[in-house]
Amino acid sequence: MISVGIIGGSGYTGKYLAQFCLNHPDIESVNVYGHSTAGRTLHKIFPELVNQFNDQPILDSANISFEHDVYFIALPHGEALNYVPALTEKNKVVIDLGGDYRLNDDEVYYEWYKINHTSPGLLQLKTYGLADYFGASFYKSNLIANPGCYPTATLLGLLPLTEKFADNIMSASTAAYSGTSGAGKSGKTDLSLSEMDGNVRAYNVNAHRHQPEIEQMLKQFGFNSPYSFTTHLLPVSTGIYATTTVFMYSEISKDKITEAYQDKYSGSSFVRLRDVPPNLRWVIGTNFCDVNVSVNKNVVVITSAIDNLIKGASGQAVQNMNKIFNLSESAGLLKGASNVSVY
Amino acid sequence: MISVGIIGGSGYTGKYLAQFCLNHPDIESVNVYGHSTAGRTLHKIFPELVNQFNDQPILDSANISFEHDVYFIALPHGEALNYVPALTEKNKVVIDLGGDYRLNDDEVYYEWYKINHTSPGLLQLKTYGLADYFGASFYKSNLIANPGCYPTATLLGLLPLTEKFADNIMSASTAAYSGTSGAGKSGKTDLSLSEMDGNVRAYNVNAHRHQPEIEQMLKQFGFNSPYSFTTHLLPVSTGIYATTTVFMYSEISKDKITEAYQDKYSGSSFVRLRDVPPNLRWVIGTNFCDVNVSVNKNVVVITSAIDNLIKGASGQAVQNMNKIFNLSESAGLLKGASNVSVY
Amino acid sequence: MISVGIIGGSGYTGKYLAQFCLNHPDIESVNVYGHSTAGRTLHKIFPELVNQFNDQPILDSANISFEHDVYFIALPHGEALNYVPALTEKNKVVIDLGGDYRLNDDEVYYEWYKINHTSPGLLQLKTYGLADYFGASFYKSNLIANPGCYPTATLLGLLPLTEKFADNIMSASTAAYSGTSGAGKSGKTDLSLSEMDGNVRAYNVNAHRHQPEIEQMLKQFGFNSPYSFTTHLLPVSTGIYATTTVFMYSEISKDKITEAYQDKYSGSSFVRLRDVPPNLRWVIGTNFCDVNVSVNKNVVVITSAIDNLIKGASGQAVQNMNKIFNLSESAGLLKGASNVSVY
Amino acid sequence: MISVGIIGGSGYTGKYLAQFCLNHPDIESVNVYGHSTAGRTLHKIFPELVNQFNDQPILDSANISFEHDVYFIALPHGEALNYVPALTEKNKVVIDLGGDYRLNDDEVYYEWYKINHTSPGLLQLKTYGLADYFGASFYKSNLIANPGCYPTATLLGLLPLTEKFADNIMSASTAAYSGTSGAGKSGKTDLSLSEMDGNVRAYNVNAHRHQPEIEQMLKQFGFNSPYSFTTHLLPVSTGIYATTTVFMYSEISKDKITEAYQDKYSGSSFVRLRDVPPNLRWVIGTNFCDVNVSVNKNVVVITSAIDNLIKGASGQAVQNMNKIFNLSESAGLLKGASNVSVY
Repeated sequence: MISVGIIGGSGYTGKYLAQFCLNHPDIESVNVYGHSTAGRTLHKIFPELVNQFNDQPILDSANISFEHDVYFIALPHGEALNYVPALTEKNKVVIDLGGDYRLNDDEVYYEWYKINHTSPGLLQLKTYGLADYFGASFYKSNLIANPGCYPTATLLGLLPLTEKFADNIMSASTAAYSGTSGAGKSGKTDLSLSEMDGNVRAYNVNAHRHQPEIEQMLKQFGFNSPYSFTTHLLPVSTGIYATTTVFMYSEISKDKITEAYQDKYSGSSFVRLRDVPPNLRWVIGTNFCDVNVSVNKNVVVITSAIDNLIKGASGQAVQNMNKIFNLSESAGLLKGASNVSVY
Repeated sequence: MISVGIIGGSGYTGKYLAQFCLNHPDIESVNVYGHSTAGRTLHKIFPELVNQFNDQPILDSANISFEHDVYFIALPHGEALNYVPALTEKNKVVIDLGGDYRLNDDEVYYEWYKINHTSPGLLQLKTYGLADYFGASFYKSNLIANPGCYPTATLLGLLPLTEKFADNIMSASTAAYSGTSGAGKSGKTDLSLSEMDGNVRAYNVNAHRHQPEIEQMLKQFGFNSPYSFTTHLLPVSTGIYATTTVFMYSEISKDKITEAYQDKYSGSSFVRLRDVPPNLRWVIGTNFCDVNVSVNKNVVVITSAIDNLIKGASGQAVQNMNKIFNLSESAGLLKGASNVSVY
Repeated sequence: MISVGIIGGSGYTGKYLAQFCLNHPDIESVNVYGHSTAGRTLHKIFPELVNQFNDQPILDSANISFEHDVYFIALPHGEALNYVPALTEKNKVVIDLGGDYRLNDDEVYYEWYKINHTSPGLLQLKTYGLADYFGASFYKSNLIANPGCYPTATLLGLLPLTEKFADNIMSASTAAYSGTSGAGKSGKTDLSLSEMDGNVRAYNVNAHRHQPEIEQMLKQFGFNSPYSFTTHLLPVSTGIYATTTVFMYSEISKDKITEAYQDKYSGSSFVRLRDVPPNLRWVIGTNFCDVNVSVNKNVVVITSAIDNLIKGASGQAVQNMNKIFNLSESAGLLKGASNVSVY
Repeated sequence: MISVGIIGGSGYTGKYLAQFCLNHPDIESVNVYGHSTAGRTLHKIFPELVNQFNDQPILDSANISFEHDVYFIALPHGEALNYVPALTEKNKVVIDLGGDYRLNDDEVYYEWYKINHTSPGLLQLKTYGLADYFGASFYKSNLIANPGCYPTATLLGLLPLTEKFADNIMSASTAAYSGTSGAGKSGKTDLSLSEMDGNVRAYNVNAHRHQPEIEQMLKQFGFNSPYSFTTHLLPVSTGIYATTTVFMYSEISKDKITEAYQDKYSGSSFVRLRDVPPNLRWVIGTNFCDVNVSVNKNVVVITSAIDNLIKGASGQAVQNMNKIFNLSESAGLLKGASNVSVY
């Protein structure tokens, strides 16, 4: 049985982490640590959890216990740097849901995050935990960089094509749309319902931190063509919808492309290949990533959908823990007495 | 272990029923019956369920098996009349989620539903399954009329006050708001997102079928004052928010009123008394009913919130089954390996 | 031709005021004054207005000109107290869109706003500008307290019944629902789309500042029965939907009640009597108030809908100006070259 | 003064056409023709227009008058074929808002619309009325094919780059998102709020009728590279947001690209170049198209936003009429006594 510490338990991601861990059949104890919320309880912060889970005090993140087996870190980027080195030194399993350990190169990290990385040596040692793409053998390290929400949706859609046909790809571009919860829980006028209801806008065009993260992985699979990544806000609270358009130098048959995806994902617990473009709502409240591939001559259009807070954060984090501990990949994530998704 | 038949499995309510039953620890088999959907499968109708539940064929509702222990009926009103008499004669447990057996009097039924009741004798025999209000001893019959969605929200909020202080109530009125899924799954222009986004409207004013259902129960608890019930559509897919204003003849202290509610609901699995008016989202995706009572001299304002498809339909139906079979009231409805609510 | 000063031009209400005034056929000049926004321009604050209206600098509200004929004040409550006495002394027409001059009694003002009123003498002198209810003769003063958004919707629905049948009213209660823009433009987590999408909640139950404002008017028309007023937030940006339930001591015929409303509103520019409960969207983007009255024996249910930012604020304010200057009541508010409402 | 006939006045587009025409300073009379709605009136079909416009009978579209100067046709594709030849023969100005005359080639028309074109000769004679892109000299014909909603947003964004740098474009792809009103007014389950709230989905991938329309124009401006166009549904009622990613063979400076757009659109009434990606809400309820261009080395990302029912249909149609009659381009479309946009 596993003992878990969650550092940063008061945001949207922390809430789901607490729920998944409190319900996990192989987890025996969960401590939630926070800073400004220390001294309060989960029920106070998330009144919807009353009667659903036993209440949990929020402990002070300045004094975390080192007795846990696994640490999930759900903090703004930059802050994980204060915890990870000490935890990895003690050989703890650390799963960082932020961006501090995703990139392999501290100079690239500085370029995009404007922070000097204080443990650059760990960047090469970490495992990039794209859980549905990599088998157990890939998990060689106890430090997992949990992928960003956009990269998860984008890469699960684009990697099978890349892995098989990288040389044939002339260019690829992703237009990705996210619900507002991706921006976190703090109040801002331009994320208010008054401003976002009925609204859509692109943001960080040609400048989103998830772009180098995606490109790093694409390159690892042989992709060397132009790539562009554009993010937008949707008037929904949760969910990411990513549409990737790939131009191939030469036509590849729909069958061959479909085969590449089926080879990769048949037997997958959480990636569901679809005959039609997914509805975003099919994945909301779940750890699934739904993917559709449409081929028209030398144009391949890939649509993928995830819940940004689950598959794009807490759900994938727990899935990563399952893999490291050789548990069933879907333990605590799928079936249960009342796994009712809203939609 | 229980064998379940679901008659009418292709609507929103049927979908949740299937999910709850397929996940229920005490149910061993589930057959889903449909008419126009017979021959298809659950996964075809609800693509979001793929990988989450094993697929189920939809069987022809013209030939239901009589081998099940429990029958949930999720059909438009009028249609349950074709199934219930035969099933009750065979002593099956029947839980009707429609309106055909809720009223006690066939003339009142005709007045509101414009259908001649063909098994009026069962109206008096049935149990009105307001699961969170009545103890096991109340479940004297194998025919359960599952309460309507609006009556569930309204009565769980208003009955404790009524039971204790009916004589003191001068008048009461409920303004209830529902998401569009309450109108079912069929396509209508005035339920389209194009028309309902950003919209609200009252409907069936002074003429909603749930009004006599509510009044029947109120009278049973001694309420004999004027009562009014007004329904509205909200621009959300799921949820009911009911606000009931009660004018008392004489002032009763806030403490005494609070006590009446605590007496009733302390220890309740699914009714959560709140210090502040509930957020509708606190209950979405769950079987909870959240209730707040605000007292200002001789005015009592009660707000209550439910998920219309769960607490207002399928969740309460399963809860009723649990009560009849002496299972834990929350079996299959609350905790589990991955009971993740969206909000 | 009229010269207008708008004090507080950077909020949602200020934006609409600027639009109405810049388009008004009888207004020749508009100055917009602000505090934190001084030095910027309307186009910077509201990019959607580019090409639609000439840009306007935001002038410093610390140095307003006294050359204007009319002053619209769109400030948080308490702040109008700093401007109104000096302006009224100079005999300017002042239309205050906030709550500082709506109540007649400074003690009641203190009770609800927790501010000592510094010009209590003006409370009795002001005109309560419920523009669609009162004729020109009512506008005896140059200081107009523009009614609150909720009171506008509620009173336009309830006053005709009250005026004619106050003695027969046993009790009345209003459940009113508002879009989030009613809470203003500042960012708060609990008004974010992440939290409010799909959500509804009651707030300030038994404690909303608009309740004494409504009751003050009801009493003026002879209403002396219990009244309750409950406010809720809707997941829409704009609009108020108010449902008022009235219990009468004795039954009054539907015809007589309808007649009371037709007497009042036939010929009205902006109150539209409806055969069915209004859709909120019918009034969004307009200065209309749609009203439906449903009678069932001794129960009268009145539904009314407005755009909270227009009829509930800036539109009614301009309408009040029109009345004072003996212009057409709908000047600048209704028809035009391109009066396209979104819905 | 112009006499107008609107054929097909009961859909969303027809409603806006009627509003624009009834408010247009140069239009003296408007007849609205319909089929299933003949005999009813505009107010019956659109209750929100009461008191705003005088009521109009819907005349039988089987007997249209030939006395009008201009005919707007707002019918499902295929149906304009029954009206256009007779009207053009009588030298009437015909503005078809449907797809029947947009493509230049009847075989391409058949391929995409599966209808045999019965007046193919008119395909070459028509003017493709992309009103904000073409000067008056381009309007050589009395038959205007009003561009599709998606092509309008996409082409206004992409054409300036294409016109100047077509040879340098390696590939381009558009991910376009539309509100549900683009699918028209008929009720379908998958367009209901119950299904679309919180939802997004791609549709007609590699198979949308607007793709050949866009490509036809791109080719006309020298574009011969791969192009892909993917459409999605948004959970909003109105609006289109189009993001086009262009890979250039060689880098062009941001200044040169910006210059190309400014050359084209400085002085434009309705295209607003933006420093940041537009918010969809900036254009809702208006005839504007907001465009932003972001350049990063050899990647150009263009975002453009329109109201699909106005700039993408009725507004552009009236603008086309203005151009043909040498009126001010924005007559009836922009300023007015009360041009209040909702947002």
